[in-house]
Amino acid sequence: MAYIDGYRLAESRVLDLAQPLRRGMPQPANHPPFRLVLDRRHGDYVRPDGSSDASEIVITGGHVGTHVDALGHVAQDGVLHGGIAAADAQGGQGLSAHGIEAFRPYVGRAVVLDVPRLYGVDVLPPGYEITAHDLSRAEALAGSDVRPGQAVLIATGWSRVWDQYDVFTGMRDGVPGPGPDAAHWLASRGVRIVGGETLVFERIAPGLGPAPLPVHRILLVEAGIHIVETMRLDELLDAGVGECLLMLAPLPIVGATGAPVRPLALIPE
Amino acid sequence: MAYIDGYRLAESRVLDLAQPLRRGMPQPANHPPFRLVLDRRHGDYVRPDGSSDASEIVITGGHVGTHVDALGHVAQDGVLHGGIAAADAQGGQGLSAHGIEAFRPYVGRAVVLDVPRLYGVDVLPPGYEITAHDLSRAEALAGSDVRPGQAVLIATGWSRVWDQYDVFTGMRDGVPGPGPDAAHWLASRGVRIVGGETLVFERIAPGLGPAPLPVHRILLVEAGIHIVETMRLDELLDAGVGECLLMLAPLPIVGATGAPVRPLALIPE
Amino acid sequence: MAYIDGYRLAESRVLDLAQPLRRGMPQPANHPPFRLVLDRRHGDYVRPDGSSDASEIVITGGHVGTHVDALGHVAQDGVLHGGIAAADAQGGQGLSAHGIEAFRPYVGRAVVLDVPRLYGVDVLPPGYEITAHDLSRAEALAGSDVRPGQAVLIATGWSRVWDQYDVFTGMRDGVPGPGPDAAHWLASRGVRIVGGETLVFERIAPGLGPAPLPVHRILLVEAGIHIVETMRLDELLDAGVGECLLMLAPLPIVGATGAPVRPLALIPE
Amino acid sequence: MAYIDGYRLAESRVLDLAQPLRRGMPQPANHPPFRLVLDRRHGDYVRPDGSSDASEIVITGGHVGTHVDALGHVAQDGVLHGGIAAADAQGGQGLSAHGIEAFRPYVGRAVVLDVPRLYGVDVLPPGYEITAHDLSRAEALAGSDVRPGQAVLIATGWSRVWDQYDVFTGMRDGVPGPGPDAAHWLASRGVRIVGGETLVFERIAPGLGPAPLPVHRILLVEAGIHIVETMRLDELLDAGVGECLLMLAPLPIVGATGAPVRPLALIPE
Repeated sequence: MAYIDGYRLAESRVLDLAQPLRRGMPQPANHPPFRLVLDRRHGDYVRPDGSSDASEIVITGGHVGTHVDALGHVAQDGVLHGGIAAADAQGGQGLSAHGIEAFRPYVGRAVVLDVPRLYGVDVLPPGYEITAHDLSRAEALAGSDVRPGQAVLIATGWSRVWDQYDVFTGMRDGVPGPGPDAAHWLASRGVRIVGGETLVFERIAPGLGPAPLPVHRILLVEAGIHIVETMRLDELLDAGVGECLLMLAPLPIVGATGAPVRPLALIPE
Repeated sequence: MAYIDGYRLAESRVLDLAQPLRRGMPQPANHPPFRLVLDRRHGDYVRPDGSSDASEIVITGGHVGTHVDALGHVAQDGVLHGGIAAADAQGGQGLSAHGIEAFRPYVGRAVVLDVPRLYGVDVLPPGYEITAHDLSRAEALAGSDVRPGQAVLIATGWSRVWDQYDVFTGMRDGVPGPGPDAAHWLASRGVRIVGGETLVFERIAPGLGPAPLPVHRILLVEAGIHIVETMRLDELLDAGVGECLLMLAPLPIVGATGAPVRPLALIPE
Repeated sequence: MAYIDGYRLAESRVLDLAQPLRRGMPQPANHPPFRLVLDRRHGDYVRPDGSSDASEIVITGGHVGTHVDALGHVAQDGVLHGGIAAADAQGGQGLSAHGIEAFRPYVGRAVVLDVPRLYGVDVLPPGYEITAHDLSRAEALAGSDVRPGQAVLIATGWSRVWDQYDVFTGMRDGVPGPGPDAAHWLASRGVRIVGGETLVFERIAPGLGPAPLPVHRILLVEAGIHIVETMRLDELLDAGVGECLLMLAPLPIVGATGAPVRPLALIPE
Repeated sequence: MAYIDGYRLAESRVLDLAQPLRRGMPQPANHPPFRLVLDRRHGDYVRPDGSSDASEIVITGGHVGTHVDALGHVAQDGVLHGGIAAADAQGGQGLSAHGIEAFRPYVGRAVVLDVPRLYGVDVLPPGYEITAHDLSRAEALAGSDVRPGQAVLIATGWSRVWDQYDVFTGMRDGVPGPGPDAAHWLASRGVRIVGGETLVFERIAPGLGPAPLPVHRILLVEAGIHIVETMRLDELLDAGVGECLLMLAPLPIVGATGAPVRPLALIPE
């Protein structure tokens, strides 16, 4: 009576783990600003039968809003995961290797590591560096073990400050996130997917600047682990569950270095 | 009453029901042509630690690729579903009512109505009009009944010709799809979601022209039923199942008249 | 021996009155951020004969960089210049009346009103309001009279601070510009075109906010005078001329509310 | 030696040499389709004083509509004009060498070579290859000699068929244009700028295909001569002048491989 590690869907609640996409929302600098513009409005053209339609143009990026990083998003010394030369794998059609279309949609278990709860807070302080020790303790707290090939969601509580633009983007005070040893811990556990709530799955020190991205290098390049960023985990954290059923199907944009996604979680009602 | 009407996920297979997004793919004329452009390539900027990243800009539309129509996509005589005046519900931020963000992600049962199989073919002829009678017979063939509040996928086999641009777009010979009485049948069954494989969920006669969209009017405006277009159903049809577990979570673009989606189906292994 | 009021082109110097267009340059908030992205780079595709080409995609707005405002850019109480109802003149193809294509390219005389020089400065203080009295005195200083149907360039010296993003955009301290009585003075002189150096041809008070744009209303709606914004006048001001030959040919974007332009000035060598 | 080789501007007529920019106009395949979308319409937001404004987003390319090719647009064997390695001169900000910003606006003489008139026609046949001999004869016909450092406009009459989409784009029957020996003739005369009416300043044979662009290579890479494409020369040809005063100031898009332009011609009244 297995059906995905014991979840009974009919008795489940579906949680939406994506942030809404709209102009002016927090997003990483340098990436194209999200913009929806109505291209045709009702009334611009009305058919003889009285019907009309409205439609839009959308401009965005692969790393804007809730999204999955393709393995080819980051290179180290010009080399992508698995030893592929980046220069050979990029072109006018995007990436020819390790693009997001190589990510097989995931429907499976995700462990929820609630780091803020370890410290009795809802939101980690800006600039806080999550350690491997934190992750171990959070795993124990979850009562659910992180398993190879599966997903792990690492809470900072940051989606609770989504509506505070300056805080969320951390331009002044920084952003909490994993440090290199946390990344090594994740790699050692053999997970396939890690997710977080911040714009960038890194610890960003106050004042940031052109920071290196060690966690991206360790996860994407060295370990071949996909990263999900800007997830909305607040409801999942409020529910106090140690694991959920995660559905993660990013848009299949051929050659993209990342793609928007609307992840869902199923938890017991 | 267990786990989504009897599906056992651990013994299931996940099918991807989205078409890949790439420049030059079939899409409705008038909507913004899909375009991925690498904005930053590996090597454009290399950090002192030797790491680099690549990222893109994406230009698309809400009705490009596999997508869900918001109820506000179509109006009749200037009025949206539920009697809302279209003129009052549209503006510089998109739709203020019946935008795609009003669509709650769906995780539930979908009945598969395999109309081509009724006629012993894999693909319906271009311009074929699916009737209510076809749908009734296909429901019987599915051995699974269409229920209120649920989803129904109506096959034309058209995703099998995705790679034949001229055929798929039907510029010359038309496209198979439901006629008005099929739409009324769907509305009478009280479904929440209908999905199809073609660019537009309508029968398009050869030579088309500025055709009316009666099925859109009946489903979106009159009945408040969401439409999923350009789905890739070929694998689902090959599997020969009469129903599946459908996961449908379009991008939550606030105010959009439609949004891209990567639907997944779970079927028994 | 007329040739444009006495200018001898062979003995002239051509000045470029446009600011360079690049990502991150100062531009009005709310308008689409300028972005150039190389779509194809050399090497992405090499023809059998060894040749390759590179090309780009450009995303911008009609009021981004040096540009001309179409008369239809602003409405008062829903009415455009000449009594046209704005609602009837806008649609999915842009403006059907008073779009920028209605602006006939201008090759003619422009008087230079050097307001900073009146006060013995190079740059007016942020938030300074230029008055009608300032314009009269600057006209006398120019030694060249403003004539009906011609152009007038009103200096603030602001293009000298183009490279100081925070100063130029004036988010904190404001921006110098004409007040309503200066606008009435311009209208009373019957000019066809007025140009300025700032993002918006208005006085912006410190702390701005959702300010009204009285000068736009007076010039565009009431008087039918086109406005050129974000001009680079520093070289022209350095030359100390009271007039020049202006060539002003905005891109002929049909239906646009404004369009980029690269104005040139000819002055004596 | 007065006023640009004898032109008297006050007694002159200004001709617009640009094609209008609008959605669906003829443009080279592969380049981003031109699109103007009203981002804000009158009424979307009305200020307390009753004023409103409308503005747009524009998506285009550097080689869309009437435009100037930067020298860096084409490379031969990976090398740009002057021996610069293309790989070193391109990046996330576009071209760092031979971008369009390196083109100094031109205000000067242009000789008009009316090739159709040589043959007693208004429009050259599709696929016709203009030869060096044609150019020599057309120069004699113009009664005006092509000089080093100046501009030459080479008519095909093609702007007369702008409104015939299939003809203008030449998908089936080809497009008239210069062959390699005409390009060598132009290079030998030391001109700075050559302009033409077609989408691509080349002879395109019927059925085209992935053609080489020999004229681009000779002019841009070998000779360092800028090319202006998709000019509207019909009025200039109707005027029957052998030369004009040309004003050519492409948008100063830093790093672009080409940029839109609205050229003007002055001819005697």
